Amino acid sequence: MPVDRDTRLQEWERRAQPYLFIASILFLTSYTVRVLIPGLSPGWDALWETVTIVSWAAFVAEYLARLAYSRDRWHFVRTRWLDLIVTVLPLLRPLRMIDLHERMQLRRAVPGLALEARVMTYSGLAALLLGYAAGLAVYHDERSAPDANIRTFGDAVWWAASTLTTTGYGDATPVTPRGRVIAVGLMFVGVALVGAVVGSFSAYLMRRFRQEGER
Amino acid sequence: MPVDRDTRLQEWERRAQPYLFIASILFLTSYTVRVLIPGLSPGWDALWETVTIVSWAAFVAEYLARLAYSRDRWHFVRTRWLDLIVTVLPLLRPLRMIDLHERMQLRRAVPGLALEARVMTYSGLAALLLGYAAGLAVYHDERSAPDANIRTFGDAVWWAASTLTTTGYGDATPVTPRGRVIAVGLMFVGVALVGAVVGSFSAYLMRRFRQEGER
Amino acid sequence: MPVDRDTRLQEWERRAQPYLFIASILFLTSYTVRVLIPGLSPGWDALWETVTIVSWAAFVAEYLARLAYSRDRWHFVRTRWLDLIVTVLPLLRPLRMIDLHERMQLRRAVPGLALEARVMTYSGLAALLLGYAAGLAVYHDERSAPDANIRTFGDAVWWAASTLTTTGYGDATPVTPRGRVIAVGLMFVGVALVGAVVGSFSAYLMRRFRQEGER
Amino acid sequence: MPVDRDTRLQEWERRAQPYLFIASILFLTSYTVRVLIPGLSPGWDALWETVTIVSWAAFVAEYLARLAYSRDRWHFVRTRWLDLIVTVLPLLRPLRMIDLHERMQLRRAVPGLALEARVMTYSGLAALLLGYAAGLAVYHDERSAPDANIRTFGDAVWWAASTLTTTGYGDATPVTPRGRVIAVGLMFVGVALVGAVVGSFSAYLMRRFRQEGER
Repeated sequence: MPVDRDTRLQEWERRAQPYLFIASILFLTSYTVRVLIPGLSPGWDALWETVTIVSWAAFVAEYLARLAYSRDRWHFVRTRWLDLIVTVLPLLRPLRMIDLHERMQLRRAVPGLALEARVMTYSGLAALLLGYAAGLAVYHDERSAPDANIRTFGDAVWWAASTLTTTGYGDATPVTPRGRVIAVGLMFVGVALVGAVVGSFSAYLMRRFRQEGER
Repeated sequence: MPVDRDTRLQEWERRAQPYLFIASILFLTSYTVRVLIPGLSPGWDALWETVTIVSWAAFVAEYLARLAYSRDRWHFVRTRWLDLIVTVLPLLRPLRMIDLHERMQLRRAVPGLALEARVMTYSGLAALLLGYAAGLAVYHDERSAPDANIRTFGDAVWWAASTLTTTGYGDATPVTPRGRVIAVGLMFVGVALVGAVVGSFSAYLMRRFRQEGER
Repeated sequence: MPVDRDTRLQEWERRAQPYLFIASILFLTSYTVRVLIPGLSPGWDALWETVTIVSWAAFVAEYLARLAYSRDRWHFVRTRWLDLIVTVLPLLRPLRMIDLHERMQLRRAVPGLALEARVMTYSGLAALLLGYAAGLAVYHDERSAPDANIRTFGDAVWWAASTLTTTGYGDATPVTPRGRVIAVGLMFVGVALVGAVVGSFSAYLMRRFRQEGER
Repeated sequence: MPVDRDTRLQEWERRAQPYLFIASILFLTSYTVRVLIPGLSPGWDALWETVTIVSWAAFVAEYLARLAYSRDRWHFVRTRWLDLIVTVLPLLRPLRMIDLHERMQLRRAVPGLALEARVMTYSGLAALLLGYAAGLAVYHDERSAPDANIRTFGDAVWWAASTLTTTGYGDATPVTPRGRVIAVGLMFVGVALVGAVVGSFSAYLMRRFRQEGER
């Protein structure tokens, strides 16, 4: 009964969503708190660290469980590569959430937004999330570097915005190797996502002006 | 008679346009004067401040009047979000003017420009206006900051141009938190608008070359 | 006989082309020589200055003659705006040359390049020419400025390349007001032209891959 | 029997591929080793230099052999311009490899990736390779320049990434004439390739969202 097995996997994924969503919010919150509030008391620090670890462990366990259950494991890994990425880098997990929210709306046939608006919303939210995650991670690495020019979280957000839009002023740039690796990732993924936002905005304007011209 | 009510709302909007246009010119002029000519005599300063406040109050009153008159208020807020933005940030109001001018031309069936030329004109004017408004606002915030490198309005215009085109030289960048928030807004909205200009210019060239090739 | 008049205007334009082409080469050469070789002897300097003035005068005379001859002058000015621009700013005249070369090839039904290749060639050549002209003009203005960082023509070319591609390193940027005005022009026109090159290259790749996939 | 001659040329190209692929890997490896490990013993240095020269000689010999064998030599040079470029600049040869791999997959009718995914893969790999080659070459030129800010290979990679995405922070930029010539090449070719990646990613998102909307 292979069809049954696929159906049960999908059923499982649908039911696990709310819990994974809560876990991803907990992960993002705990990581944010631990990066942005460095002078936590040992008790709170241990608590938030536990939250980070437990939520990450939940993601890994859920991924492995689905992998073990799937009929063709290599096929599962290859077609679900976004799941693997957000399991290894849980800061990006909300990407998966946007994706799933999108699919569910479509399944329920919610009328929803125009095609371009959906691409813009999805790419724009993904870009903002990536910018936030990269800003946090870069700030975490850079703030203790001796010759860094990213000294506050505000600097890190400013850097992330000027990187995502490819403006690149250069008044705030990472100097540590890890910070630069994160930056290169943000540049390449960000340029593609922001390009998709710009492209769909452009297509939306063209379509709207065409429709108004026809009326 | 709900149809009658919608029709009357549109009739009202059509009639209010010239007055709102004058008010938006007065707002932009008074804001410009107050930012660019700091050594005004108290009398003139008070006069221009009054112009600023009165024109803003006119926008707010007009928006609230329309909101109160509309049948479905939540629907009004949601579908007229551009109206809400230009009421809260009146520096951007001319955007609404371009939009309305465009619609009226279409209603009167003015032959007008090709599709791409209209998208380019609209996006380009919106980008220039945004750049001007952001330049003014950033200059206003930065000129008194101790370590600013935007010291004249010329610097602010230079910064706005290098930001809108995503060149981002970095020789003039905002350093105050408020200046940076405005800059992030300009980056994201500007990259989309300039991208739309570039996209429609590209589409226009492609179409013109195709037509010449067919002849 | 209005048709006859239009035909004669076109005939005149066709015949004047080779002379205008030579004049535009002379203008570009004389401007280049006078900017790049500042220590010319008075005699040579006067000669090259005469070449600049005479060739410019030829452009103006030719434009005015055509304007005077055309039936509807306002229509002539509006539809031939590229002619007006390259008459006022003769450094950009080769743009007109590329345009005319293109049209003539089409009239003679030369098989020529694919659509995307023609858009790429035209936009790319226009971008290179604009970059060269802007580099020359900025170098001319900046080299004597006290705190300039564009000190050699090589710096100016480097600046023009990083501006056209919107990279904008910021290690060489104009500091004089005139230099910055030229830079803003290069940024906006350059971003559109380079965007058209990128867009048509992208469309070309898509088409070629699609064709190979179909075979 | 001209058809036979073309067929034999293609047969030859097909058979020579594996050897040329090995030679291009050897060239890239030997160039990388000689740039990144400057303190090689004379023996190893001579060995790697020989590898560089021999593999380059193989490329030149193979190109000349094919040129000599082809019926219409001018046509061969014009239609095979990518072959000429990768023979003169062998650091870019893997571009040819990607191209051939692509063509062979198509000939064997491998189902393979969607159109946009293929354009993205091809342009993205070409951009990465160009960035790597430009980084190596710039590092080679800059590391001994007195006022350089590209001092390590890491700096060169960081510079190449910020150039390819047109971010252009400006904290690491070439200062030598040769480094800048390479940089200008990377900017122009890179902006086109990365633009193609962004454009096809955008088209892919649009298509996927449209398909999901239709289901």
